[in-house]
Amino acid sequence: MTTEELVAQIRLKKSFLCIGLDTDLEKIPSHLLKEEDPIFEFNKAIIDATHHLCVAYKPNIAFYEAYGIKGWIALDKTIKYLNTNYPELFTIADAKRGDIGNTSTRYAKAFFEDMEFDSVTIAPYMGKDSVEPFLAFKNKHTILLALTSNKGAYDFQIKLISGKELYKEVLETSITYENSENLMYVVGATKATFLSEIRKIIPNSFLLVPGVGAQGGSLEDVYKYGANKQIGLLVNSSRGIIYASKDEDFAQKAAKSALQLQKQMKKLMH
Amino acid sequence: MTTEELVAQIRLKKSFLCIGLDTDLEKIPSHLLKEEDPIFEFNKAIIDATHHLCVAYKPNIAFYEAYGIKGWIALDKTIKYLNTNYPELFTIADAKRGDIGNTSTRYAKAFFEDMEFDSVTIAPYMGKDSVEPFLAFKNKHTILLALTSNKGAYDFQIKLISGKELYKEVLETSITYENSENLMYVVGATKATFLSEIRKIIPNSFLLVPGVGAQGGSLEDVYKYGANKQIGLLVNSSRGIIYASKDEDFAQKAAKSALQLQKQMKKLMH
Repeated sequence: MTTEELVAQIRLKKSFLCIGLDTDLEKIPSHLLKEEDPIFEFNKAIIDATHHLCVAYKPNIAFYEAYGIKGWIALDKTIKYLNTNYPELFTIADAKRGDIGNTSTRYAKAFFEDMEFDSVTIAPYMGKDSVEPFLAFKNKHTILLALTSNKGAYDFQIKLISGKELYKEVLETSITYENSENLMYVVGATKATFLSEIRKIIPNSFLLVPGVGAQGGSLEDVYKYGANKQIGLLVNSSRGIIYASKDEDFAQKAAKSALQLQKQMKKLMH
Repeated sequence: MTTEELVAQIRLKKSFLCIGLDTDLEKIPSHLLKEEDPIFEFNKAIIDATHHLCVAYKPNIAFYEAYGIKGWIALDKTIKYLNTNYPELFTIADAKRGDIGNTSTRYAKAFFEDMEFDSVTIAPYMGKDSVEPFLAFKNKHTILLALTSNKGAYDFQIKLISGKELYKEVLETSITYENSENLMYVVGATKATFLSEIRKIIPNSFLLVPGVGAQGGSLEDVYKYGANKQIGLLVNSSRGIIYASKDEDFAQKAAKSALQLQKQMKKLMH
């Protein structure tokens, strides 16, 4: 998917909501456990009920990998279901991968070509030759971890490196990479005050913002300091939407939660 | 596996060789492609031919993930084959994972419990709460990326953070993590001169050293500057061993290559 197509969807739906498909067999409604593939059935129901309210879905790959072969089959069915039925939606493999050269290319092929995700999240620690193999794929997007929303982010990301915070060094270095126009960035919502600093370095890039809702970030702040002319934001919510109910009405309740966020977004976009 | 058991194997075999199972369908002997599971058959033959010369095997997960479900099945069969037939060998899932809290726990369970690897490689960028979930597993080892052997390592890892290089900050911070005795570190062999600096910070930890052979590092330097009282090294070779031949004798040729390295190691250990 091109960035223009993503922006068009955001304007059409008046939403920059991304729904995190962090599907956990211990948290999904128990009546689904009778199904042959409960993970996929849960995702399918959530997608069918919420696709008109969001512009992106983001399965965190750890949740699927944790179930082994069964989990990978469910992931594969989920991405195929999305691409077949809702091709207008942007898809993010939240994999946080990163390796060198040819090995990175293998991860890129797995997510971009075989599974046909639009984007994948990548850790920056190994630098240029671990990121560029992902950037080489046309109309695919590499979402680099910049400033994450967890406590451990303080360990390294905001420490001073060559006179500036490491996450800024990551941003500034990454824009020198080949095909850097294919970069987006993960920026934790709980650090909304950092957003204006970040926008000075990367005014035009899309930011994937986790941590609104359960992790406590403010949507208003994120929009105020993070939005650009083409909105440039994907705000993710996972648990707050997909686990809104454990009963048979879980999909409707998920849609209700998603609608609340979409309404706030619509208001902010006006 | 305990560290003591690993050290005992190293002394017994006079080897600190780790063989990288970076199995690529385009590089394995063509006669294997007729098999139902060529990846596993290749791994099995390599393992049977080399297990007495090395102390560890390290599949790079990207190579398996790239083949989708089929790749995960081959990986699963490979680790089961190792654990059943050669339980004395240390196994490393070279996955370079990293996520927050509960999500990291899912990756940890996938590799430590479901697949029963002894260790997994982890990226440090997200800090403490992305690493500690792995460290919580008893007799399992978390191998943190410190100083990698690729060019991109210069992007961030050796830049000064709070007055010292980022990789040193990673080392120093990581030893304050809970259960840090379960940490090992990835240190690129092509940076052998950095090893004495690293040993000042982590004198007792095991180092996983890629980049000897194809990537140009010197085994002598690695041993001279990196070995400690319990050797404390796992030196990895992948392509130089597993692709020593593309003919029917590939496994014997792999053993021959492994033997050359093991002989050098034996000499160094005397």
